[in-house]
Amino acid sequence: MNTKKASSSGVPSAGYSVTVRMKIENNPGNFSQLVQAVADAGASIAEVVLQYSDFNFNIRLITISCKSEAHSREVIELVKTIPVLELLEWQDDTFAIHRGGKLNVESTLHLHTTDELARVYTPGVARICTHIEQNPQAVYDYTIKRNCVAVATDGSAVLGLGNIGPEASMPVMEGKAMLFKQFGGINAFPICLATQDTDEIVATLSHLAPVFGGINLEDIAAPRCFEIEDRLRESLSIPVFHDDQHGTAAVVLAGLINAARLTNRVLEDMKVVVNGFGAGGVACTRMLHSAGIKNIIPCDSRGTVYRGRKDGMNPVKEEVIQFTNPDNVQGSVGDALKGADAFVGVSVPGTITRDDVAGMAKDPIIFALANPIPEILPEEIEDIAAVVATGRSDYANQVNNVLCFPGMFKGALACRATDITDNMKIASARAIAAVVSVDELSSRTIIPGVFSADIADIVSRAVQEAAIKDGVSQLD
Amino acid sequence: MNTKKASSSGVPSAGYSVTVRMKIENNPGNFSQLVQAVADAGASIAEVVLQYSDFNFNIRLITISCKSEAHSREVIELVKTIPVLELLEWQDDTFAIHRGGKLNVESTLHLHTTDELARVYTPGVARICTHIEQNPQAVYDYTIKRNCVAVATDGSAVLGLGNIGPEASMPVMEGKAMLFKQFGGINAFPICLATQDTDEIVATLSHLAPVFGGINLEDIAAPRCFEIEDRLRESLSIPVFHDDQHGTAAVVLAGLINAARLTNRVLEDMKVVVNGFGAGGVACTRMLHSAGIKNIIPCDSRGTVYRGRKDGMNPVKEEVIQFTNPDNVQGSVGDALKGADAFVGVSVPGTITRDDVAGMAKDPIIFALANPIPEILPEEIEDIAAVVATGRSDYANQVNNVLCFPGMFKGALACRATDITDNMKIASARAIAAVVSVDELSSRTIIPGVFSADIADIVSRAVQEAAIKDGVSQLD
Repeated sequence: MNTKKASSSGVPSAGYSVTVRMKIENNPGNFSQLVQAVADAGASIAEVVLQYSDFNFNIRLITISCKSEAHSREVIELVKTIPVLELLEWQDDTFAIHRGGKLNVESTLHLHTTDELARVYTPGVARICTHIEQNPQAVYDYTIKRNCVAVATDGSAVLGLGNIGPEASMPVMEGKAMLFKQFGGINAFPICLATQDTDEIVATLSHLAPVFGGINLEDIAAPRCFEIEDRLRESLSIPVFHDDQHGTAAVVLAGLINAARLTNRVLEDMKVVVNGFGAGGVACTRMLHSAGIKNIIPCDSRGTVYRGRKDGMNPVKEEVIQFTNPDNVQGSVGDALKGADAFVGVSVPGTITRDDVAGMAKDPIIFALANPIPEILPEEIEDIAAVVATGRSDYANQVNNVLCFPGMFKGALACRATDITDNMKIASARAIAAVVSVDELSSRTIIPGVFSADIADIVSRAVQEAAIKDGVSQLD
Repeated sequence: MNTKKASSSGVPSAGYSVTVRMKIENNPGNFSQLVQAVADAGASIAEVVLQYSDFNFNIRLITISCKSEAHSREVIELVKTIPVLELLEWQDDTFAIHRGGKLNVESTLHLHTTDELARVYTPGVARICTHIEQNPQAVYDYTIKRNCVAVATDGSAVLGLGNIGPEASMPVMEGKAMLFKQFGGINAFPICLATQDTDEIVATLSHLAPVFGGINLEDIAAPRCFEIEDRLRESLSIPVFHDDQHGTAAVVLAGLINAARLTNRVLEDMKVVVNGFGAGGVACTRMLHSAGIKNIIPCDSRGTVYRGRKDGMNPVKEEVIQFTNPDNVQGSVGDALKGADAFVGVSVPGTITRDDVAGMAKDPIIFALANPIPEILPEEIEDIAAVVATGRSDYANQVNNVLCFPGMFKGALACRATDITDNMKIASARAIAAVVSVDELSSRTIIPGVFSADIADIVSRAVQEAAIKDGVSQLD
């Protein structure tokens, strides 16, 4: 890629795309001038639609991925300067798709007659109310509770943006609800709360529970997120799932299962260093332990966490260290990595070096999940690592929670699960891993793609089986 | 109607309909046997669909309105006994339409590519979040808040069913959300709360406010409903509207305006007796006063409420009596009605008699809104009353809130109103009244039908104008 004129670092992304509507004189080479100019600017043409064409000119919609908002505006100014082209209009695609919001609440029936009205509303609806009052489980048969999930946040830890509050978090929760619908067929609704008090969040979500078949907690800061999840799971009879923890952990476990397959390791015997004590790091550590991995060394910004450490400890670390770091290794992340089979980073950029990776066991497995900039860039270690996974869509092996949560809730809702157990989470991970066939398995494909067919159904079935085994299904 | 075999009282209703799928031998008179049998049973055939027909037989779907669930089961048994008919299958239509709930949450875009995913979710969505964080009003431009209303209840006073709780109230709130969508084009979502504590309800709905452009309170028991509405209106910058109060009151006022037109009265000079101190009665009294009616006599189960009364008073009655009952009339409802122009009952069946109506002024106006059985049945007074309105769809002049709330919220959302003021409510009533043209106006048509074209748009425009005048519009 030619970046000599690029004003921004990084690679062009669809998240920064603009679509220009260009009137182009119909001579050979004119369109190519535009393509070349875009390339010279370090931007990337994604889609081209020919809207109109005659002997004199044509009109095209051209979607151009850029590196930043500022970069996209430079590209707009640039195309204006090309004589044979006329910029008719343009839009910022990300803003355009968000205009008016990304969800609609639709009725299952358009009413044409007063008879229909008399069934869906008074007086007929009273019969359904009475039926549910007398048969509480019937709320699942005759209301949206059957297939409806709250995507709940307090806006305190949204993406990498931090504590931006409930209103600014809305687009993420709406986006999550879109993913629930598209991949799981589940109705999901954003619940963005104007409180960051743990007691208030627990009380509010408890009061909302009648409407929903499950609650997906999202982007709530640690350690508050742990207590909120624990208390809601304890008090409610619907499943509560903190996706930043368990969704991430399930996909990481799926990836490690396949990385072990690829490198001929036994999962349980691997030595795994987990760096980071946020929601994702803690959940990964717990799930890898639940899946049978005996030697996990948890690290934070001060290095390894070990029994007897005095500085920077907290109740969560004290708990985690009871079942991890069996050799009680003390030292830096680099020290922990010596001879390790795998690194799972859920932390910040620059945490590990190429030398650290070189000091690991043969065929090292690196999950560098810090977003948007990984702990170490794949290109720095691609020659010495057996597998590299990141959280990004523009590298191979993206750890994307959407592989887990739609199927997880689909399965939980299908059997009216009262909880999401460890076994259900592990079952989802194994199901995701199994989607990658022997033929497909490679260093660039240990994790299925987001658009893999049927993945939510496959996960759903595995989750339901585990729910039934664990006795949390209400429909055995 | 032949009711000699009817096992239930009342009239057949679509709310108790069943649809039977019948195989009928193809001889003249066979279908008519079925029709006659249904009529003999006191049921009523609504719709008939011919699904299949050949020389030997035909298959029809026949929708039969019955008087009760038990009656519908008797009708099913009856049709099984007719030799030339075969009952293939049947359903209870009200239960059938409710199966699985009545709403879906849909995405505005089906995702086909990772580029689309990168816009609606990470990384692109972060740009929208940041934009809203920096420009708080942009939450209306780029999220569902723009056109989304919470239909919120605690399940304490649902229809005429009473305190049935949040789960059993769900079908009503979903039905309300359907009406919001169909008549107002508004996304509405049920919020059925597992608490009936005033403070908890206020706190919960306050915490949810970021998601919604407005809150429609529904089926919350009096007097709790008054305090909840007052406190939410005070603390939130989105409109809060208790439909059982203000929706009812607006349609009652609309009806009274047209009843005054029809009987050549001046609205302001009318003497109106309002019976009932629930949410609807109090709101009617307040709105009729706000609309300029000077002589309103409020009554409760003990008779007129007057200054100096000691028994059965409460703060709401003490407040209302400050601006009503100018002559401080003491006595029964019947006493209050002597010489009165209009009666508005929002109470219980049997409150007034034909003699009471006979003692009113010439051309008496009766709004008997108790549901499902009115204070007095229209057929008892149709010869002496100028106008009778009820809350029922099976009599003329139905006072139905759906004439008000979709347009009310449509107008409030369109101008991003921060409140719903008295003037907006009165404007909605005047707009509803004006929908009935001079040609249409009659004793059977003082209130428009539910399916009247454009009524929400008409109300919306009137409401917006009032909002701008009152300074509560954010988009002048």
